[in-house]
Amino acid sequence: MRELEERILRDGKVLPGNILKVGSFLNQQLDVPFMMRMGREIADAYRGQDVTKILTVEASGIALAVAAAAVMELPVVFAKKNKSSNVSGDVYTAPVHSYTHNKDFTIVVSADYIKNTDRLLIVDDFLANGEALRGLLSIAGQAGAEVAGCAVAIEKGFQGGGDALRAEGVRVDSLAIVEQMSDTGLTFRN
Amino acid sequence: MRELEERILRDGKVLPGNILKVGSFLNQQLDVPFMMRMGREIADAYRGQDVTKILTVEASGIALAVAAAAVMELPVVFAKKNKSSNVSGDVYTAPVHSYTHNKDFTIVVSADYIKNTDRLLIVDDFLANGEALRGLLSIAGQAGAEVAGCAVAIEKGFQGGGDALRAEGVRVDSLAIVEQMSDTGLTFRN
Repeated sequence: MRELEERILRDGKVLPGNILKVGSFLNQQLDVPFMMRMGREIADAYRGQDVTKILTVEASGIALAVAAAAVMELPVVFAKKNKSSNVSGDVYTAPVHSYTHNKDFTIVVSADYIKNTDRLLIVDDFLANGEALRGLLSIAGQAGAEVAGCAVAIEKGFQGGGDALRAEGVRVDSLAIVEQMSDTGLTFRN
Repeated sequence: MRELEERILRDGKVLPGNILKVGSFLNQQLDVPFMMRMGREIADAYRGQDVTKILTVEASGIALAVAAAAVMELPVVFAKKNKSSNVSGDVYTAPVHSYTHNKDFTIVVSADYIKNTDRLLIVDDFLANGEALRGLLSIAGQAGAEVAGCAVAIEKGFQGGGDALRAEGVRVDSLAIVEQMSDTGLTFRN
């Protein structure tokens, strides 16, 4: 998505530790009109795929998931990062390691909200090592749900998580794939 | 908002500890088409108020804030609940006590994202004791921003947080106000 690539070049900041900071439009501050256009791109890519529900993980995945769901007229389920007192009953869980924050956590979804009749679209803002998507795929599998694919805004292609998933047969769509980045600039995969 | 009251009566569950569980449509699972209608109600209430930005707090406030922002064509800034390595530079912080989870946390917004020229609409999913809204009002004050008002989906009126804020002159709009609730049912403020 050309508009996203241009926005990353204009407003993104490369920080030590392979962090691409896009807090001015995609995390913390959300350019919602732009995110609605990203949601429409995702909706277009999954037209006719019989998706019943969008699955994401808190917190920064929620906005893009809502944007896509608004266009597709679907519900969103978001995994929580630690078990809350408001989640009762049976749950699906998966361990996730965050390289950005260098810590492990567990993502949790109530079993009430994903059924084996669901066909899920998994949405997240970032794809780097693929840890979060693998956790969400695990939860979908535990529920016996089908997965139509994974859609993310920004994939850090050089970290390999997306290509590893594709090699395993998972459909992965990224609106922008950063092929290489450093403090002097970044390039995108064509 | 009649549709929200009916939905709470149909799908809400009252749990011990004054918890109203609406995870099937407002937290964890998000009925996005319905949330977009809630967003439109909020947008209608603040038409002509010259709002420049919507402020909320992760995670469950994000979806309603995005819904309102999509209609109002505004950006959203969300406060994080603990300082992340992706937040650099100066920050505004406020302490918040969660009665639901019985713990204290700090909400954090990068100073880059709220300016003293902003006129904010504060949005959250729930209003009980008003702790989260007070934290967000504190952050707005630290930034020197004006606050047009606070809009929430569900106010638990019997916990008094909304009325205390109104008595202090803060505009607070709730799409549904639960006046009383127990495991045998609940009633709304007219």
